[in-house]
Amino acid sequence: MRLSGREFFRTLSVSEALESFRPARRTGTERVPLVDALGRTPAVPVVSGQPLPGFARSTVDGYAVRAQDTYGAGEGLPTYLDVIGAVSMGTAPEVALRPGTAVQMPTGGAIPPEADAVVMVEYTSLTMPGTVEVTRPVAIGDGIVRADEDVAPGGQLAPAGRPLRAQDLGLLSAAGVCEVEVRARPRVAIVSTGDEVVPPSTRELAPGQVRDATASALAALVTQAGGVPWYAGIVPDDAEVLTKTLEEALAEADLLVVSAGSSVGARDETAAAVERLGRPGIFCHGLAIKPGKPTLLAECVDVPVVGLPGNPLSALVVFRMVGLPLLRLVGGITAGPPEPTTSATLSRSVASSAGRLDVVQVRLDDGVATPLFGFSALLSILTAADGYVVIPEADTGLHEGASVTVTVYR
Amino acid sequence: MRLSGREFFRTLSVSEALESFRPARRTGTERVPLVDALGRTPAVPVVSGQPLPGFARSTVDGYAVRAQDTYGAGEGLPTYLDVIGAVSMGTAPEVALRPGTAVQMPTGGAIPPEADAVVMVEYTSLTMPGTVEVTRPVAIGDGIVRADEDVAPGGQLAPAGRPLRAQDLGLLSAAGVCEVEVRARPRVAIVSTGDEVVPPSTRELAPGQVRDATASALAALVTQAGGVPWYAGIVPDDAEVLTKTLEEALAEADLLVVSAGSSVGARDETAAAVERLGRPGIFCHGLAIKPGKPTLLAECVDVPVVGLPGNPLSALVVFRMVGLPLLRLVGGITAGPPEPTTSATLSRSVASSAGRLDVVQVRLDDGVATPLFGFSALLSILTAADGYVVIPEADTGLHEGASVTVTVYR
Repeated sequence: MRLSGREFFRTLSVSEALESFRPARRTGTERVPLVDALGRTPAVPVVSGQPLPGFARSTVDGYAVRAQDTYGAGEGLPTYLDVIGAVSMGTAPEVALRPGTAVQMPTGGAIPPEADAVVMVEYTSLTMPGTVEVTRPVAIGDGIVRADEDVAPGGQLAPAGRPLRAQDLGLLSAAGVCEVEVRARPRVAIVSTGDEVVPPSTRELAPGQVRDATASALAALVTQAGGVPWYAGIVPDDAEVLTKTLEEALAEADLLVVSAGSSVGARDETAAAVERLGRPGIFCHGLAIKPGKPTLLAECVDVPVVGLPGNPLSALVVFRMVGLPLLRLVGGITAGPPEPTTSATLSRSVASSAGRLDVVQVRLDDGVATPLFGFSALLSILTAADGYVVIPEADTGLHEGASVTVTVYR
Repeated sequence: MRLSGREFFRTLSVSEALESFRPARRTGTERVPLVDALGRTPAVPVVSGQPLPGFARSTVDGYAVRAQDTYGAGEGLPTYLDVIGAVSMGTAPEVALRPGTAVQMPTGGAIPPEADAVVMVEYTSLTMPGTVEVTRPVAIGDGIVRADEDVAPGGQLAPAGRPLRAQDLGLLSAAGVCEVEVRARPRVAIVSTGDEVVPPSTRELAPGQVRDATASALAALVTQAGGVPWYAGIVPDDAEVLTKTLEEALAEADLLVVSAGSSVGARDETAAAVERLGRPGIFCHGLAIKPGKPTLLAECVDVPVVGLPGNPLSALVVFRMVGLPLLRLVGGITAGPPEPTTSATLSRSVASSAGRLDVVQVRLDDGVATPLFGFSALLSILTAADGYVVIPEADTGLHEGASVTVTVYR
């Protein structure tokens, strides 16, 4: 049941919103070369066409042997084996083992036929030319990595939905995968509104004007999360211009983000403009989060829309908590990279209301988290902060001395 | 005192190495536009030429007043003030307050002259045209953010040495800073060695060959840390070719990384080639770390050199622990971004040797960290891992059930 007019929308909790607002939009797929694939999200699992490492390899410097030839060997009673060859790196072994023989092996070398173990060089000595003395027995498989021990043929190299990490690229390289089918990066349109807002490049401000601080910070968050942001414009508080700008942005965007004006009237205008963009329309207007209550979530045609509060601090807090999960959803990320966190002791008590998520900016010094408060238009609170503490919806506050988990900014 | 020949180098602990190996090389500086400055490291503190927000602003929707005109106001005995105007967003106030008057304010609007507080609209009503009823007193400064409350003129917007975060870009935008002087990205040459190593693009492997997995994973780690990697070549175990390749790479690099061959002989050859690159030469050959003991640190002319073990897993572990701190040092990062961590319970005991740093790969499931073991040439251990646990040098192991901090891969 959806109604128009903001007064009909109840305030949702953040967890309710994240659970129930699940737009269907997903970005398409594209093939990218492996060198550009760091952080990109496989659209399907990446599998190996071949076993890895592809041949049985020695894990040590030593001698390839038949394990049974070493049984009973010891310091007091060594076993003597004929050295019938040596394996070179990167080439096929030239000889096969026969009973009573050994082949010299470098770490990583290919195990010769009929050998089933490698004795470490530390437990051997070359007492006579052509003969190696073995002073410790080995079991079958000792010193050997199987041909398919890293990956079996058809085995998964990387799952779908998890952005590729450094080591994933390594394994893909080992398997000879030089291109990956990934989700396209979500295109995120950022619209700033407000008669007072002017571009950051404005050299001299007229009285009452402020430069657009939110857009560049939002763009940075989008980039960090794997999206492609673009500035779709700074719009005055004018219904017609706003509607036109949003319509144009909507046509190109996988996600539309509007930082609303900070006054109540400007926010209402944004909501009205969003409502005109198309069905299903506004999902909720008002989130139980502090700062950030006036947040608006909508789906216009098939593009999710996030209306952010006008204050930069509130806007950035809400975008982290609600916008980034939406961005990941649209971009096919099911296992997002973790945020850095650390444990700290709270330096003073912080009150909260039950049912509301509080996001408290904190400075960190030697394991002590000091809450930073102030008017939510003050960006310097965010730049002074090292991270934030979330007070869950069920809690009514945190006491001085409480042990808290701080999500650390990077 | 430096000697040549690897046998003369004692094994250093990782913390000793990080403390005492401090090459002087730093990258130069360059100016980048703000839109490209995310994650870049300011070379000098960025300061504001002007106060921010630049004018006193209202933090609420309401009425600008002289606080003293509201003293004594209450529900039962409201104060009545003449509304002599309204401030619009983005423009200078057109009227100054006189005793007994009020001016209507939007959130974020410029405070008119002579006003020293703003009454929230919730505590007012317009009972008669042109007159506002105030039912709660305000103190001087209520509802107002000062002209320099975000940043004072000359105040710091961002420190040197800390990569710029999303909110830093926001504050820089607010201050009209459109270019930042940052450290150049460190150029990192990656050289792979080994007769068995072939490019990842090799379609069919000959027996005994392996594709280069380490280089692409190292390149990804370098990129994540803000450097610019390049593949300086795959070199066979040939002293002359190796020396020539390293010399060429050295000329272009701020940091040279060599993944040595996995056999002892190949490692010695790498050390010998590094020694020929120039003074001061090898700093240590051998780190008390598992995996990764055969690590080599050197400074050739003025370029730091890291010689990594031949096994991909060892190489990547060591590069994280030792190479990335060097990369940050060279790139002027004094306050690096934090790594994601999480607390977990260890599923089984892990032994370690005192004096050695152990890096244990773990899978994470529901707060339980399960150690993953295997031959250190197996990259699949790293791709199966969600993160790693460090057993400090002083410890001899961790017990099953121990609470551990897992650094989580991203």
